[in-house]
Amino acid sequence: MSPTTTPETETAQSPTPTPVAAGDGTEVKGRLAVRSGTKVTLSIDAMGGDRGPAAIVAGISRSAAKNPALDFILHGNAATLEKLVAKRKHLRGRVEIRDAQGVVTMDEKPSQAMRRADTSMRSAIDAVRDGEAQAVVSCGNTGALMATSMIRLRKLEGVNRPAIACLWPSRNAGGFNVMLDVGADIRADQQDLLQYAMMGASYARNGLGLSEPRVGLLNVGTEEHKGRAELKVASDLIEKTQQLGNYSYVGFVEGGDIPGDKVDVIVTDGFTGNVALKTGEGTAKFVGDSLKEAFKATPLSRIAALLALTSLRRLQKRIDPRRVNGGVFLGLRGTVVKSHGSADATGVSAAVKLAYELAASGFTERLAARVASAAASAQTDKPE
Amino acid sequence: MSPTTTPETETAQSPTPTPVAAGDGTEVKGRLAVRSGTKVTLSIDAMGGDRGPAAIVAGISRSAAKNPALDFILHGNAATLEKLVAKRKHLRGRVEIRDAQGVVTMDEKPSQAMRRADTSMRSAIDAVRDGEAQAVVSCGNTGALMATSMIRLRKLEGVNRPAIACLWPSRNAGGFNVMLDVGADIRADQQDLLQYAMMGASYARNGLGLSEPRVGLLNVGTEEHKGRAELKVASDLIEKTQQLGNYSYVGFVEGGDIPGDKVDVIVTDGFTGNVALKTGEGTAKFVGDSLKEAFKATPLSRIAALLALTSLRRLQKRIDPRRVNGGVFLGLRGTVVKSHGSADATGVSAAVKLAYELAASGFTERLAARVASAAASAQTDKPE
Repeated sequence: MSPTTTPETETAQSPTPTPVAAGDGTEVKGRLAVRSGTKVTLSIDAMGGDRGPAAIVAGISRSAAKNPALDFILHGNAATLEKLVAKRKHLRGRVEIRDAQGVVTMDEKPSQAMRRADTSMRSAIDAVRDGEAQAVVSCGNTGALMATSMIRLRKLEGVNRPAIACLWPSRNAGGFNVMLDVGADIRADQQDLLQYAMMGASYARNGLGLSEPRVGLLNVGTEEHKGRAELKVASDLIEKTQQLGNYSYVGFVEGGDIPGDKVDVIVTDGFTGNVALKTGEGTAKFVGDSLKEAFKATPLSRIAALLALTSLRRLQKRIDPRRVNGGVFLGLRGTVVKSHGSADATGVSAAVKLAYELAASGFTERLAARVASAAASAQTDKPE
Repeated sequence: MSPTTTPETETAQSPTPTPVAAGDGTEVKGRLAVRSGTKVTLSIDAMGGDRGPAAIVAGISRSAAKNPALDFILHGNAATLEKLVAKRKHLRGRVEIRDAQGVVTMDEKPSQAMRRADTSMRSAIDAVRDGEAQAVVSCGNTGALMATSMIRLRKLEGVNRPAIACLWPSRNAGGFNVMLDVGADIRADQQDLLQYAMMGASYARNGLGLSEPRVGLLNVGTEEHKGRAELKVASDLIEKTQQLGNYSYVGFVEGGDIPGDKVDVIVTDGFTGNVALKTGEGTAKFVGDSLKEAFKATPLSRIAALLALTSLRRLQKRIDPRRVNGGVFLGLRGTVVKSHGSADATGVSAAVKLAYELAASGFTERLAARVASAAASAQTDKPE
């Protein structure tokens, strides 16, 4: 039941990866288990994001400096990108630029955006579809990225609604929980919630190195009689599927458990998950800003802030949303990492690291095998 | 549009209250406008809550010391309560004890609890119904308190689903936003959401002293095409009712806006609101605890913590959920304040203060008049 950092990875597909080092060559603790030095090419949508291509190129340059096993295909305005890339010595000889003139704006309707053939977003996704890159990273419009990924990459066999999973800073030993769906779809029925449990558990096994992740279903109370009727049905389904899904079900959890240590995977619909994610981020930022103000209040507190600088930096690192930047789309035939729209170089680099780890560990293939075996088993269980 | 601390109170009912001082005699800033020294009797459910009657008696004693205009009717085990009250000099001659042997447990089903005639909870509510007290405070089971309040006090004319409103620490000038519903009902249709907007705006006008509160509807994005279909309909309704409701509608808001300064009243269904409330509380506590750990990390940081003590206390006060303890039930024929189940003396005292201010300002009567006039107007607007 308790979380462990011994990585017992998915066994549905061989060869079994050797969990040794992270993409930047440092030892992994509670993060993705990756074959050391595995070469990966990432496809990068350089035009998405609020800060424009400069922040994105700065971010991948930072990743390139840390990880020699990484190459990139950059999609966007070629003239702009060539200039930006030329300035970065770590990117020399490691970046291919694909010209794409169309840019998906942050407020564009997904149904419109996914129909446009000339966008940097679609070009970036297509490079994964065509096997030229192992994962795509975009800071762009989330809805458009999901819609375009669904039509270009397609859903995994047996998946009804793909989900976006995020890592959430928590009291757990590894420092993070997984929550899904945080915004792929505003609806989720009981079958979708069951699939989220399976996919989230798989992500936690591979991504957080937990042999048997504890899964909880988000509700307004932990008592069985509380909450919406479909949640009770979903709870029963998720409980019954524990063995097949290789997770341990803890029952209903509440909002307060999201940063807690009671559970590793929090399952919810994309509406609730998105509100919770943004509320948590907003609250953390509010408390952090209030703390800064408090330290500026008096000369004594300003001295205190200087003395505590190292400790405060450690705290900031622990709760910094940029460090865990990167929502992963689960349930597609390809790995898609959605970075925050407002990500700076640090944020982009974190998303790139996550994409590298997922690609190098073959996570999507293992998830596909897991979902397929679950679907097959459900088929067998059906009464004739 | 911008929040103001000039209290323009509801005018639907006379006599107009004179907004001068809070219950403890100090000047009000962005809190409830109250006639100074107005005598109020509060009905207290002494048996609810995780910490038992001792914490509750300690809390009301603290309030009694600060506010000479307060008297209490205490409901619960008379023998226990008499002993506890006898120890508190501030409560001498100001407390009437009503024996009630039944205790509603925290995990009891609301439908069962509301049928029991012998509980301290029902006895406390009945004192308000019978006009012996002007408001009730309970730390007990929220669902049971709402269910019992609905059958004993009844709903206001024109209200379909009552809601629970909470104050949320925010970047606004007054320091707080109002959010509702945070857990009265897991469902809310478009008409309910409109009523929440009206009731929340009324609470913000009277409770936060805002002449024209800014109302926002919680969604997963601020773009008009996002979110559930019923939210779009509700958004149109709330926008159309701006003038009648005496508020200004800002459109959709996101989770990140809850602690922000873009909006004064956040409207949502009780499922989403409850998850957001608990996520925010959990995140604030997680960040606070991480901060404490960071200060313990090195000798230098321990010295820093000592130097910054005053500033840190100011911060803690700003984000302490106990300070804004007390969810208010809106839409009932009587004032009900729900304190946190885990409230200590500080928390109970905050809830008592809120109940005093609401009772002394005649808020429920004014809200009733506002809702009735809105219902009458909607009736007139109907096509024959």
